[in-house]
Amino acid sequence: MSHPFQTSAEFRDLLNRAPASDQAATQAAADRNGQLTKPPGALGRLEDIAIWMAGWQGSEKPSASRPQVVIFAGNHGVAAKGVSAFPPEVTVQMVANFQHGGAAINQLSRNFGASMTVHALDLDRPTQDFTETAAMSEEELVDALLTGWTAVDPSYDVLVTGEMGIGNTTAAAAISAALLGGGAATWVGRGTGVDEAGLSRKASVVEAGLARHAEALADPIEVLRRLGGREIAAMAGAIAAARAHKMPVILDGFICCSAALVLAKAAEGALDHCLAGHVSAEGAHGRLLAALGKEPLLSLGLRLGEGSGAALALGVVQGALACHSGMATFAEAGVSGA
Amino acid sequence: MSHPFQTSAEFRDLLNRAPASDQAATQAAADRNGQLTKPPGALGRLEDIAIWMAGWQGSEKPSASRPQVVIFAGNHGVAAKGVSAFPPEVTVQMVANFQHGGAAINQLSRNFGASMTVHALDLDRPTQDFTETAAMSEEELVDALLTGWTAVDPSYDVLVTGEMGIGNTTAAAAISAALLGGGAATWVGRGTGVDEAGLSRKASVVEAGLARHAEALADPIEVLRRLGGREIAAMAGAIAAARAHKMPVILDGFICCSAALVLAKAAEGALDHCLAGHVSAEGAHGRLLAALGKEPLLSLGLRLGEGSGAALALGVVQGALACHSGMATFAEAGVSGA
Repeated sequence: MSHPFQTSAEFRDLLNRAPASDQAATQAAADRNGQLTKPPGALGRLEDIAIWMAGWQGSEKPSASRPQVVIFAGNHGVAAKGVSAFPPEVTVQMVANFQHGGAAINQLSRNFGASMTVHALDLDRPTQDFTETAAMSEEELVDALLTGWTAVDPSYDVLVTGEMGIGNTTAAAAISAALLGGGAATWVGRGTGVDEAGLSRKASVVEAGLARHAEALADPIEVLRRLGGREIAAMAGAIAAARAHKMPVILDGFICCSAALVLAKAAEGALDHCLAGHVSAEGAHGRLLAALGKEPLLSLGLRLGEGSGAALALGVVQGALACHSGMATFAEAGVSGA
Repeated sequence: MSHPFQTSAEFRDLLNRAPASDQAATQAAADRNGQLTKPPGALGRLEDIAIWMAGWQGSEKPSASRPQVVIFAGNHGVAAKGVSAFPPEVTVQMVANFQHGGAAINQLSRNFGASMTVHALDLDRPTQDFTETAAMSEEELVDALLTGWTAVDPSYDVLVTGEMGIGNTTAAAAISAALLGGGAATWVGRGTGVDEAGLSRKASVVEAGLARHAEALADPIEVLRRLGGREIAAMAGAIAAARAHKMPVILDGFICCSAALVLAKAAEGALDHCLAGHVSAEGAHGRLLAALGKEPLLSLGLRLGEGSGAALALGVVQGALACHSGMATFAEAGVSGA
């Protein structure tokens, strides 16, 4: 297929031409919901999920029986600064683990009937250290955005985006601090388990990145290029592609949401097709979700990435849609209303 | 089979002879968990669930692929006092809906691969109005406990107990107030959606019940007989049977947890084999879970009963066990540790 964009400016234009959800399908689903054999509102957020999905899928009875999980992996120049508890070679080792079916996201994808693909982005060529220069060139950024965009297959009914990349909570913290303010300390956390000294190094690295790129922090796409990473850009591309296809997305943890934040800052309403799957144990994730105006479905102390929290939330979404599509109405069941 | 108990005193004795979980299997699962390809603790509560299930099932790799959902329905004398937004005939109508596959719990059971049975307990013969006399005789209580006990099939790997019974949030509030104190207003809520006047009637009915049975409130089984209902007693019987079979249980909402509370007060540790599936929108449920020392897996604003919140939590439990049983170890995957 021809590329949907060839520059980051064209990508931004696409975000600003994103389609809206189908109001007729939303209304039809809301009407149906009001007739199902339960007290009004008794299924809580499950009802909201079903009606919202109906709008994006353009169907009174939406489905999540064919989810797509796309995992992007990248390596980070800042990993050399000692910001992770794990060495950078773990990124490529974990990609092999994904490919052989041994990681958490493989089990969760299989459990919830999802098709999963892994996309390794130039792992032998880490991004530049953002304390010194931009993490990516314009060309590298566009390549990563396109990798994400083209990974999305609109024949599936819901998308989960996940990532792997030693050092990438530091990049996510830098993006969050750049676009939301509050200083580095607000946004750095223990990631996969760094100690107190590691946490302090992360904050220093983020502060140095913010200082180095101070003149560019007003432009969200430029923030992504300078402070992000290939897997973060790829997630942004995938989330944007899903929107173009009117395919609902379940967001994962802090790093996934830092990619989503770039889109939200670049175009109003860019995340209207996204649900927050969970809030992770990485403290900054809750703050980031609040800034995005997203209420997470799950809060189970996960802090793994890989799309794992979003994949787990597929169970809730599938349960919601099973109720919405399968329940009898009061009239069908001969049950008296309130 | 011969009845496991013939009196409520014998039921109480069974509770006090309940088996413990298997410490060797717990340790084996914890050891395995420590070797899986993820940072330590990165799967949060999913890791705790897997290790806990291992102990009850006596297996390093526990399963939740064959859940059993048992739904009990009963009618309540206090329903005549106007404590529900729905008329009492809805109980029998909803039982028919369960039998025909049209209710929320049918869809959730199917979605998560559960086998579901419905047990209607003398719907044409409501319990007595507890503001006037005991809700059940000793014989009626034992019959209901036995209905619950015998409904449990230990060939399944995890149990969900649910209920249907117009008026039963009032009975659950009365049991909670009797066993935990705090007064009627602490424990009554809007149930399926009563208005302000209905809420006030519920509180008055509970207060009247507490006053009528004041001399008996120190004995949890007697509280169940006097203030409970057949479906609540049946859930207590089912939860106790699961313990005898060392079968883990996922607790549902406020009414299910009022049955569990009776067991917890009757025998220390009686709920060690139980997880809280969710916290419902019925405000008293959160207070009751706190009293039981149970942290819910989900909080999605459900207030339907039927076992719906617990059935939805099956997705989380199945995801947890898929990770625990299916993930590669660091050694298997050739991934470097921290």
